[in-house]
Amino acid sequence: MTESEDALAILSGHYVRLFEDHIGKLLEAKNDGVPPRLKECMSYSLMAGGKRLRPVLCLAAAERCGVGPEKALPMAAAVEFVHTASLIHDDLPCMDNDDMRRGRPTNHKAFGEAMALLAGDALMMWAFGYALSRLPHAGIPYETVSKSVAILAEAAGPSGMCGGQVLDTDRESQSGTADFVYSIAGAKTVALIRASVVSGAILGEISDTALKCYHDYGTHLGMAFQIVDDILDVTSTAGELGKTPHKDEAQGKMTFVAAYGLDGAKRLAEENSEEACRAIEELFPEGDLLIDLAKSLAGRKY
Amino acid sequence: MTESEDALAILSGHYVRLFEDHIGKLLEAKNDGVPPRLKECMSYSLMAGGKRLRPVLCLAAAERCGVGPEKALPMAAAVEFVHTASLIHDDLPCMDNDDMRRGRPTNHKAFGEAMALLAGDALMMWAFGYALSRLPHAGIPYETVSKSVAILAEAAGPSGMCGGQVLDTDRESQSGTADFVYSIAGAKTVALIRASVVSGAILGEISDTALKCYHDYGTHLGMAFQIVDDILDVTSTAGELGKTPHKDEAQGKMTFVAAYGLDGAKRLAEENSEEACRAIEELFPEGDLLIDLAKSLAGRKY
Repeated sequence: MTESEDALAILSGHYVRLFEDHIGKLLEAKNDGVPPRLKECMSYSLMAGGKRLRPVLCLAAAERCGVGPEKALPMAAAVEFVHTASLIHDDLPCMDNDDMRRGRPTNHKAFGEAMALLAGDALMMWAFGYALSRLPHAGIPYETVSKSVAILAEAAGPSGMCGGQVLDTDRESQSGTADFVYSIAGAKTVALIRASVVSGAILGEISDTALKCYHDYGTHLGMAFQIVDDILDVTSTAGELGKTPHKDEAQGKMTFVAAYGLDGAKRLAEENSEEACRAIEELFPEGDLLIDLAKSLAGRKY
Repeated sequence: MTESEDALAILSGHYVRLFEDHIGKLLEAKNDGVPPRLKECMSYSLMAGGKRLRPVLCLAAAERCGVGPEKALPMAAAVEFVHTASLIHDDLPCMDNDDMRRGRPTNHKAFGEAMALLAGDALMMWAFGYALSRLPHAGIPYETVSKSVAILAEAAGPSGMCGGQVLDTDRESQSGTADFVYSIAGAKTVALIRASVVSGAILGEISDTALKCYHDYGTHLGMAFQIVDDILDVTSTAGELGKTPHKDEAQGKMTFVAAYGLDGAKRLAEENSEEACRAIEELFPEGDLLIDLAKSLAGRKY
């Protein structure tokens, strides 16, 4: 772990522990009608660690809008379930065909392709069933529940994450224009990261002006995150990355490094990180975890 | 089309037309941020016809509980989106590896595996995003929206449809006991068909007693449907079925025909159809479309 990853882990450690404790207990539940092998397969990927960036953003935004983590946890879980499902599907042979993820065999390498496909589908459904049924028990009003969960679904859907995956992998959907790399990132990565922030913030009573701040923060943070991801693919070893490096170039993918060069990409990451901080600085004139998170994300590893 | 399929089409024709008109317009929408190739791929499977059993059940149940089809259409669409996604994924090489569906090449044969995988994922997300954002505009209270959509998510999730697919395909999850065939069908098929009925009924103001009637109707109708499906796999040609017949035996799947023989399975289908009718006959002493549907489904084709 590098210095900046360390900083990220320390910053978000409190939320990460709450979150992992929550989903750990959820996965241990008995008599929930889930076939044991499917539970094991979902747990394998859910409990594989990772930064937990999305649930941390959701919990932190909720708390800053007056809703404690114990109430927001089902929404944070939903966000992470959808994200984990997308990773499992993304690693499948018909997609990135990857053997390693977070330093371990990918889900389909461990459980077979059919099970990995179904575990991804099951996690997506579980995300919505869990958030919709549990948030009301935590005292969140139904209107808020519906809106928060809709934000997640729309961010992950055909005009968001899934659409971005299509732009990223389907030759016929690709365009050679300079801003195409922004279109891909905006849908593939930014939509879900922004939804993590906004679906958490909206759980509280919050003005439209403040919501807009969180929205813009999520947009720039998500963009910075994808740019850094593109940079790390070029500059890291497999051991540092926990997955196969140098994949983007091998697959001929349109990345920020391909479009702007390594130095240009680093500058863009920095700019987006600063924009993210600026978006919420009037909410937190004394500084905040969310601001530190944006700074440490842009500084990851390189 | 056989006589009983004909009867089914005539019975549900009104709802089918409303439904296909609705999703047809939805798919024609411009500037919705969905990559055109993804839209085309989702449309290919969504507009491939089929009985539309699930949306018809949803619309019919809603109307009988006081909510007109024009209000319930987003819920009916959500149910069909999830069902269509499951068919696309089910046909993939790592699952049933099927080349034909509804008399045409399966989605991955037409668009490639990666696109088919993503189109299934996108349809699942779209289902939830669409129902959650549109039902409130139709005047459905947020509490009802949350509950109705949660019913769909839970029916499709790890203890429902996705769990059933695991039981159906994963050797290690299978049991040789006599009632295992009921466990598979209950999760794989019954859960979503029942949810189609119940998620529609619950949109109206309805007593717990009446809701229980719809619930039981959905359970037996779903079971009859799966039993008939198992029978048709044995007794039909590819032309009649629109997909590959005799697959269950070739894949060594546990079906009602394998467990009870052809005559035994026909008897069970008949019994479940009668139970379905009985569950709602006190709501409709003069008869009803839903009763006729249950009768005609059990009589499909053989």
